[in-house]
Order: sequence, then C-alpha cells, then structure tokens
Amino acid sequence: MTKNTNIRISLPAVCLVWQIAMIILFGVFIRYDDESDAHWIEHMKEKNISSNIENDFYYRYPSFQDVHVMIFVGFGFLMTFLKRYSFGGVGFNFLIAAFGIQWALLMQGWFHFFDKEDLKIKIGVENLINADFCVAGCLIAYGALLGKVSPVQLMVLTLFGVTLFAVEEYIILYLLHVKDAGGAMVIHTFGGYYGLAISRVLYRPNLFQSKRLQGSVYNSDVYAMIGTLFLWMFWPSFNSAIADHGDGQHRAAINTYIALASSVLTTFALSSFSQKHGKIDMVHIQNSSLAAGVAMGTAAEFMITPYGSLIVGFCTGIISTLGYLFLTPFLEKTLKIQDTCGVHNLHAMPGVLGGVVGAITAAAASESVYGREGLINTFDFEGESANRSPSVQGGYQAAGIFVAIAFGLVGGALVGGILKLPIWGDPADANCFDDEVYWELPEDEGDNISVSIHSKINHVRSVPPE
Amino acid sequence: MTKNTNIRISLPAVCLVWQIAMIILFGVFIRYDDESDAHWIEHMKEKNISSNIENDFYYRYPSFQDVHVMIFVGFGFLMTFLKRYSFGGVGFNFLIAAFGIQWALLMQGWFHFFDKEDLKIKIGVENLINADFCVAGCLIAYGALLGKVSPVQLMVLTLFGVTLFAVEEYIILYLLHVKDAGGAMVIHTFGGYYGLAISRVLYRPNLFQSKRLQGSVYNSDVYAMIGTLFLWMFWPSFNSAIADHGDGQHRAAINTYIALASSVLTTFALSSFSQKHGKIDMVHIQNSSLAAGVAMGTAAEFMITPYGSLIVGFCTGIISTLGYLFLTPFLEKTLKIQDTCGVHNLHAMPGVLGGVVGAITAAAASESVYGREGLINTFDFEGESANRSPSVQGGYQAAGIFVAIAFGLVGGALVGGILKLPIWGDPADANCFDDEVYWELPEDEGDNISVSIHSKINHVRSVPPE
Amino acid sequence: MTKNTNIRISLPAVCLVWQIAMIILFGVFIRYDDESDAHWIEHMKEKNISSNIENDFYYRYPSFQDVHVMIFVGFGFLMTFLKRYSFGGVGFNFLIAAFGIQWALLMQGWFHFFDKEDLKIKIGVENLINADFCVAGCLIAYGALLGKVSPVQLMVLTLFGVTLFAVEEYIILYLLHVKDAGGAMVIHTFGGYYGLAISRVLYRPNLFQSKRLQGSVYNSDVYAMIGTLFLWMFWPSFNSAIADHGDGQHRAAINTYIALASSVLTTFALSSFSQKHGKIDMVHIQNSSLAAGVAMGTAAEFMITPYGSLIVGFCTGIISTLGYLFLTPFLEKTLKIQDTCGVHNLHAMPGVLGGVVGAITAAAASESVYGREGLINTFDFEGESANRSPSVQGGYQAAGIFVAIAFGLVGGALVGGILKLPIWGDPADANCFDDEVYWELPEDEGDNISVSIHSKINHVRSVPPE
Repeated sequence: MTKNTNIRISLPAVCLVWQIAMIILFGVFIRYDDESDAHWIEHMKEKNISSNIENDFYYRYPSFQDVHVMIFVGFGFLMTFLKRYSFGGVGFNFLIAAFGIQWALLMQGWFHFFDKEDLKIKIGVENLINADFCVAGCLIAYGALLGKVSPVQLMVLTLFGVTLFAVEEYIILYLLHVKDAGGAMVIHTFGGYYGLAISRVLYRPNLFQSKRLQGSVYNSDVYAMIGTLFLWMFWPSFNSAIADHGDGQHRAAINTYIALASSVLTTFALSSFSQKHGKIDMVHIQNSSLAAGVAMGTAAEFMITPYGSLIVGFCTGIISTLGYLFLTPFLEKTLKIQDTCGVHNLHAMPGVLGGVVGAITAAAASESVYGREGLINTFDFEGESANRSPSVQGGYQAAGIFVAIAFGLVGGALVGGILKLPIWGDPADANCFDDEVYWELPEDEGDNISVSIHSKINHVRSVPPE
Repeated sequence: MTKNTNIRISLPAVCLVWQIAMIILFGVFIRYDDESDAHWIEHMKEKNISSNIENDFYYRYPSFQDVHVMIFVGFGFLMTFLKRYSFGGVGFNFLIAAFGIQWALLMQGWFHFFDKEDLKIKIGVENLINADFCVAGCLIAYGALLGKVSPVQLMVLTLFGVTLFAVEEYIILYLLHVKDAGGAMVIHTFGGYYGLAISRVLYRPNLFQSKRLQGSVYNSDVYAMIGTLFLWMFWPSFNSAIADHGDGQHRAAINTYIALASSVLTTFALSSFSQKHGKIDMVHIQNSSLAAGVAMGTAAEFMITPYGSLIVGFCTGIISTLGYLFLTPFLEKTLKIQDTCGVHNLHAMPGVLGGVVGAITAAAASESVYGREGLINTFDFEGESANRSPSVQGGYQAAGIFVAIAFGLVGGALVGGILKLPIWGDPADANCFDDEVYWELPEDEGDNISVSIHSKINHVRSVPPE
Repeated sequence: MTKNTNIRISLPAVCLVWQIAMIILFGVFIRYDDESDAHWIEHMKEKNISSNIENDFYYRYPSFQDVHVMIFVGFGFLMTFLKRYSFGGVGFNFLIAAFGIQWALLMQGWFHFFDKEDLKIKIGVENLINADFCVAGCLIAYGALLGKVSPVQLMVLTLFGVTLFAVEEYIILYLLHVKDAGGAMVIHTFGGYYGLAISRVLYRPNLFQSKRLQGSVYNSDVYAMIGTLFLWMFWPSFNSAIADHGDGQHRAAINTYIALASSVLTTFALSSFSQKHGKIDMVHIQNSSLAAGVAMGTAAEFMITPYGSLIVGFCTGIISTLGYLFLTPFLEKTLKIQDTCGVHNLHAMPGVLGGVVGAITAAAASESVYGREGLINTFDFEGESANRSPSVQGGYQAAGIFVAIAFGLVGGALVGGILKLPIWGDPADANCFDDEVYWELPEDEGDNISVSIHSKINHVRSVPPE
C-alpha cells in the first residue's frame, strides 16, 4: 500500500502559520531582561554592580554555546548513522529544534520568567539555555521515531512536547523544589518515555519491509561519531550551564567530565565482550559512552565526590550497553516498541538512574560536607523549602522521577494518538528510513545502486547480530 | 582548449614572497597592546583595574573562538558540497583565510589601531576578531567563484579584498560613524557584491562543459551541513563579538539567536512548497537558514526587540530561498553572473536588508527605550557625533549601505580585470569544479568511475530542477 | 601467518580492572579543590574574594573546552584519514584518551597537586586541562602506531605513557623550573619520540603486505580535515589554557594565532612546489599546517613579538613539509621507523624547535621589555628560582628539551619491549590498517568491493609519490 507522503501543503502551512503565531506571541509577551536591556547601565548603578563582567552573559554564554552545539550538531549528527537517512537525521533535527526553542521561550517564560508587573516575559542568556534544554526532550523523542515519521508529525510532536515539558518542569523544579540542573529527570527521563510511548502507539508491524535501510554504512558511522563526540565533550557544559555561579558550575563540570570518562571504558568492555572475537560495535560506542552524562544530570552539582562520579559512569556504561544488547530487542518483540536510536538505553534508563543517584546524594548531604551556607545554596533551602532537611529533599527528588515518567508516558500516549491520524504524510513501512521520501536527493548512483541492488544488507541497528 | 593550470612556480612564489612581506611589515609595525603586553600588571595599577578578569581577553575570547570556527570550519565546510571539489572548498578557504588575517591585522591596524606616538599598531583579542571578520568578506567572494578559479587568483582576490575592506570599513565605521557590529554592510554586502562583480568579469559562457561536476553527492551534502550548522550556531557570537561589553554583547546574541530560529522555519516552508511532492532541497537548508544572521548584522545590538528579530528572520528565510529559486538562474542567464554558492542570496541581499533594518531601527531609537546613557553608549553619540539625533543616525546608516555596495561592485570589477589576465593558472571550462586540477588525489576508483562514467549527472546547484 | 587478534577477554578485562582501580584510587586520593568545593563561599570570605567571577572556572573553562575538542575531535578525526581505519582512528583515540585522563588526574595529582595535610589530591578546572594535555602525549604516540597495534596495546601504551609523562613533567616544570605552557617539550617532544621509539621496536619488515590499505580515499581526507581544522583553530587555546591569568593567556593566544597563519602559507608553498604541476598534497595540509602550534608551545606566553611568531610559523611549515617529503621515507628505510601519521614531522621535530625557540626567547628576556613585575610573573622568578637571570633560565629551558627526548626514547624503548610480547592481540602484517580486525563493520559492499578488488591502490601516506 502506498501512502501519500506529499507534504507540499502541510509542511509549509505548519511552518508559516506557527512562525507567525510565534511573532505575535513574542510581540505581546517577550522583552529583554535587566541584563540584556539597554538600561543595564542604570541597573548596574541601582544594584551597585561594579563591572560589566558581572553580567550573567559572561558567566553562562560559553556554556550556552556548548549546549547549542550539542543540540544542533550533537543530536543532529548522532542521528545521521542510518545509511540513507542522514539528511532527515540532521535536517529535521534542525527544523524542530529551531521551532521548539521559540515555543520554549514562551512556555517556560510564562511559567518561570513572567514579570507580573508589566505582564511580560523577560529573557536573557539563561532563557536561551533553558530553551535549548527544553528542545532536547523533543529531540530525544525524535530519536525513538527516526525514519518513521514525517516532518509535519515532528512539528506536532515538538509543539506538544515543549508544552508538556514546561508543565512538568514547573511541577518538578518549582512546586516540588527539586534540583535537576542537567535535567536527568526533567529532560532525559521525560524525553525518553515521551518518545517511547509515541513509538508504541505508532507501532509498525511490517517495518521489516524497510529492513534494507535499517543500518549504517561505513561513512555514516563516521559522521555519527561527530555527533557522539560533541555531545560527550560538551556534556560538562550541559550539566553546569545553569548550575549556581562559582563552585556550582565548577563542580558540575568536573563531576560530569569524570563520569563520562569512566563510562567509555565500560562501554568498550561490554561491547567487546558481547561480540564474537571481541569485535567492538559502533552502536554501543556512539551511544552508551554518553549515558553517563545523562546519569549525572541531577547529582553533578552536588558533592557526589569524584569517585562517586566514576562509579556512576562505570555502572551507566554497563547498563546502557546491556540495554542495547538485550532490552531493545525485548522492547521491540514483546512490548512492540520500535526504538530506532535506542533512546531507552541512552536517555530513559540513565535518566531514571540519574534521578535515583540525585535523590540518594541529596539525602546524604550534610553541613559538614557542604558547609552551612553551601548546603543552603546548593539545595536552595530558602523560602518555602527553608526548613527542609536533606533527607526530606531526597524524598522530593525521588518524587520528581515519577512525575517525569508519568508526563512522558501519558503525554506520549496522547500525542501518539494524535500522530496516528492519517493526515500527516508519514511514510509507508517499505519507505521508512529513506531520505528519498522527503528530500530532493542528488543523483549519486554509486550509492543508490548499492542500496537498491544489495537489498539483503541488514545490519539492523536495534537488534544485535547473533 | 587546454589551459595551463600548472601552479608549481606561481603558488609557492606568491605564498613565500607575501609571507616574507608580512614578516617584515609585522616587524616594523605590530606590537602587543596594553592588555596583552607583559606590562599589563603595571597598566592595571595605573588605570586602577581591580582584577585580571577585566582584561578584554575574558570578555571576548570565547566569542573570538566561535568566530574562528565559523571562518575555518563554517565557511570551509559549507563549500565542500560539490561532488568533487571538497578539497578545494575547505583547503583553499584555509589558505586564503590564513593569509588574509595577517594582511587584515596590518590594514585594519593602520586605519584603526595605529598608535601615533610610537608609530606602531597595537593588537589584542579584538584585532583577531576584526581580522577574522575582514577575511569573511573575501571568503564570501570565494563562494561566488568556487570551482572556477586557481588558488593564485584567490590569493590576489584576498590581497585586494582585504585592502578594499579596510578602506570601506574606515569610511563607514569611522568617517560616517555608522554602527555595524556584525557587519551586515561592511562584511556581507561588500563581500557579496565583490564576489559577484568578479564573477561577472570572469564570466564563462561554456561552463556547461563541466556540468557533470556541478552538483553535490549524498556525502558531500552531509559534510556541508557541518559548515551550515557551525555557522548557524555561532552566528550569535559573530554579531556580538565586538559589540559593547555588558548588555550590548548580551542583546546582540539574543537577537541573532531568535532571528536565526525563525528563518529556519520559513526556509523549510518555501523549499518544500517550491518542489514537487513538497520535497525539501538541501541547497536551501544549507544556505537560506543562515541569511537571518546576516540580516541581523547591524541591528543585533540595537533594541530591535525579540519579535522584531523574529520578523527579520521570517522575511530573510523567504527572500533568500526565493533568491535561490528565481534570482540565481536569472542572474546567470540574463546578467551573466555565475554564482556557485549563491552568495547573492545568502550574503549580498540579506546584507542590504540588514543595513536597511539597522537604519530603521536606529532612526526609531529613543531615550525612553534605551535610557539616556544607553542611547549614547549604543550609538556612540560621543565626540564628533555627540549631537546626532537617532533619525540623523538612521540616515548615516542608510548611507553606509551604498558605500558597501559601491566598494564591492567597483572593487570587484577592477580586481576581476586583474584576475582575467591569462597568467594565473585558472582551469578550463571543462575542468572547473574538479579537485584533480590542483590536488594530488587518492585513487578511490569507486567514486572516480561513477563521476567519469555517469557524466549525465547534473544536479546543478545554482539552477533549480524543473 | 595468521595472528590471534581475538581480544574478547583481554580488552574487557583491561578496561574493567583498570577502571575499578581508578575508582578505588580516586576514592582514596581525589577531592574537590577550594574553588569547586561547596565551601567556596566560605573560602571567598576568608580570602577576601569579591565575586564568583574570580573563580578559576571562569578564567579557564572556555579554553578547557577548546582543548577538550582538540583531544577528542582534533586528534580523533585527524587519524581517520586511512581508507579503512576511520573507526579505529577516532574510536581508539576515544578509548585511550578517556582512560588516560583519569590516570593523569592521579599521576599529575600526586606530583603537583598533593595536599600534604590531608593526603588528598585537590582538583579543579586546571587539573582537567592538565589531564587532557597529558593524554595528548599518548595520542601523539598512537599516531606513529596507527593501524598496527591492538586496543589492548594502546591501553598499555597509555598507562605507561601517562606515568612517564608525569615524571618527566615534574622534572622539567618543577625541578628545573622550566616554562612550557603549551608543552612543546613536555607534550610534543616527549610524545613524538615515545611513539617513534615504540614504533622502532615494533618494526614490521613485511608491512607492505597491507599496502592496499595504506592510503586515504577522497571522503576520509575530508573527514581528516575536521580534525586538522579543530586542532588549528583551537591551538591558541591549547597554548594559553594554563598560562598566567591576564596578559599571559592573552599573549599566548595571539602569538599562536599568528604563527599558525604563517605556517599555512609555507606548507601550501612547499607542498605545491614538491609535486608535479604544483598539485597540493592533502597529507601536508592536514599536518604541517599545524606544526606551528607545536613550535609555539613554549614561547607563546613570552614576549616573542608578533613578527617573531610569524617567523617561527614560517620556518615550521617548511621544516615539517620537508620532513614528510624526505625524512619520513628515510626514517622508514634506514632507521626502520614506520610512522603512520608522520608524528616526527608534526610533533617531535617541531617540539624540539619549540623548545629551542623558548630557550632563546627566555634568554633574551629583559626588564625593559617585560617590566620588572612582568619578568618575574612570566618566568616565575620566585622562591628557589628568585635569583635566576634570563640567560640562566634559557639554559634550563634548553636542558628541558633533552629531558623530554630522553624520556621519550628510553621510555618508548622499554614500553615497546613490553608491547612486543605475543599476548596483546596485534594484527598480522597483512591485516594492518583494517577496521575489520577489531570492529563489527556494517556491510556496505560498495566500499568493500572496491578495497578488496582493486588491491593495487597504493597511495602510501608516508612515502611521497615519485
């Protein structure tokens, strides 16, 4: 059965109408904050700020740019690994991230940065980072659906994903006063389960029809390493970008750096051990080596200690690689969840683990380790949560995990239902994972021939070779 | 007709002689400025500077590195899209940028950083950024000529291009007191028209003879996305790198980030709408999504408001994509301008638009929006221009556009005349767009065969498929 | 003769056991330093530090991230140039760097950051940079051995390499009080000779059996440029990352930027002049254009002057390219040193040159040029070396070169002996440079066929075409 994948009306319509809506909403709601407004110089005098260098821009902009690279090059190139879906991997990632950050500035703005005096959202560099973070949740979800959906579906997924994210984030960070600087729960757990739930609803029993395209080629695996490495290298910036000024950012970067190093070794170990002759599988290297960044998302800014970070990395590399080996096939066969990039192993599971690690580390905090002021600053024991003890905080942290999972699963189920409508131009089973469907392709027959003739190629990514 | 493309004498001679000239001129003229000299510690005491963190290095170095990536990886990889000119794209970009930044340090130094007491140019991190900016103009011009010129011609183009740039910049920024932090006029308008004028003079009526090479292949389009994304991600740094400390840099980054997001959506919309079945064209995504960065080059540091930035991005994505669809073929057929990368759509037109946006935003400035001091700081209403009103400033801004266009067109025509001399080793029409001419190529017959046998391949970049 | 390349037990064992050892050692020894500990806020009060922005994190983190990119993407992608060893190039680089930085934190910590009061190593962002630096030495050594060793051998190489490095660095920087901020001696000279000595011991007389794989293909040469450019662009950060706050970092970045620009031109000149028709060789561009960064490793923070930097770059580009043309074949034929990436030309020789330039520049230092305090700060004429004159310092600098060479050669010979044991799973001569041996490869027959059928391909990298 051929499906209608013509998106010549729907995609332009969605892009233009939503972009116009953004312009109107930005016009009504969004303004510069004190640090990016031309009145900054007056603001400095009022607040007795001694130097321009105290502008938050200089604290956070370098980290922001690293995060920005992770979102567009990191996630984008990580998704180029398929032999004939590199345009879609990096291109649709670009499209939905560019839309999502706008919508995120509004949604997160209404919830957390709304100035009730003049009814405006005031934005600065921290909002840009938060918008990138918010979009990451949707890009993770895209990873589970890679190759199986149309760009219009992805835009819908992003619209609802950002909305759900902002609500979930508000509940976890502001109502429950949970700390989650690198978003182990808020971003990765939510994003992972959101994508998996959608994938479940959109289950394609006949996906084997495009089996010839479900794998990588030599070159695409090298591209994908660009994505992996930029994610891996900049993850310390991800987890420290919105941590507290001073020791908070500093410690978050160190802990993440250390944990990531550890997970590389355990990933290589498990990958090699699981294959004949000890041959290493690029799928594991590209993905599981990153899971430690996710698992440190909550605890990175805490006093988890350097060896604590190593242990987290050690375990995450193992768990994530085992996930690729055993869980992904199980999910597909038994639970009917087709997870193209294996986001369950890279984001969902490590995200939950990160939430647990965060809860334990928080519960174990003490004045002797943090200092009195350090404890208050690190956990924000002020205002409503002034009387919280670390162990109570640990409880709230644990609660945050469930909120994230619930939003992911329920939200994903609902959005999956919407995306199942037969109006979005998604590809037929036999045409999944093929850039041909949505892109004008250059005619390089060399490749085309090899793909079409040798249709027996089936290094299926999500199922390990026997 | 075979042309002599042997550059075994000319290229080494130009490189070595010019490099020696650089050494001599640097020896005579260039020294460290107060912030990079070992006397800095004494300078701090004299000027009552309280901390090393006040050294301009810490304000600008992170942005400098982002700009540096844009120049070498951004521009370089954006020009790798052709199926058999990736070496030339990224390699010659590397060569001329490395030469150009040296010559720019001198030319810009004589005009703007010359210490009249000891007759030296004093350099610091801001000069490095300016040199990178200056070179960007020549790299844009290279984009119009990609595949059709020899590296010796490119060196000549750069020598004159940097010279013209420095004069033009001096007139616009210093004589007319125009603001143009991201160089919409100074860099992009000038660079675009400079390249187009040269391309006109070097018009090749028989360029169709190399049609087999005038297109991309799957892999080269993925490479090119590396260039696109690094340009796109770091454009906020480009427009903020030399903006005022504090709110100036902060606001410039935010506005550029927002505008770029908007243009991605309109580019996808127009690209999809213009093709059968709504298939997206990588040429548009690789280029038009960037045009918003250009168009914000002047106004990014002004109080254009976030929704103003969105509107600029919205329009630029549309205009630039329409340029690829209709204007590029028109330029080629009617005006005999062969523009390999479509720099008219990515730089020249958006640059002019950026100048206009800047003029309007400046003219509309007011004390109520900027604050009294904010207005003075933002527009530099000091010294000679102390009595300027915003509307007068707007007029000067508009004048800057014409200076940039004039320098580009007249300078390009003259330099084109020089490059037309039959001594530079440029390729024959049938050998354009072929790395074979200037590079030792590895023998990977797979590709060579496909290129030579299937010579009917003609996904011509600059002309849209019908 | 077929060798046993099964690493299914050895690689996982090494990775897991050593990682567990790291966890234990980190647990016993490593803690946060004052600036990354939650007690920072109390530390600020004690030390009268006025602002969080004075945390070393903000001085060094942007440079750290650039260095991090150089180590993982720069070195990694530079080693992807071989037609069928890109996985091994970037993948094993990833593995050993991730292990090495952990071991480096310990080794360098014990020598230089050991708090004798509580017997702990205290780490902050500077330690992360130093760990990355330390690992660079081993990655350089890998460059000489690329394609000829197993990952287990590389782990052993790294274990001993980091150990030797830490001792050598202690002798040079702390006992001899030598300055070497960018590691011309400590990193590049040591790393280069370490790798060359190992390669000598592991000499393979029948390596011609894998000649079909000893070259690049078009795509792999483009990948490799990603590595080259990120190294080239970020080298200013490498040389300035641990230089003194303020003018030290500022000047080191400027000098390196300038020198690198110069070497690009002389590399193109020599490369073009050495080939028929003046065709440029990618091998030279990918490597020799970088040698100036190495050669500025010592003197970058000194007052070498901008034209001095240009001269260093000028000479290094020439020397390094001549090295590829004449020295590499000589080393292979006469000295039986097989140097896959030509690290002798990119690291060892330029490193020695850098040491010499540093010694001369130091010896020529004077109070009139540096200022009294500037001289003391730049050369650390305090404590034990308070009475050193610049010329004496120059002598010590020169001595440092010999220490680095000695550690490289002797250490490499010993480690080479260990690696010669027949237990490490290294490939047979005919299977060198082939990812097939250690990686699960996707089946993209297109490439495989061309490699296996056309076995006459022999664009051998290390020997120039006649």
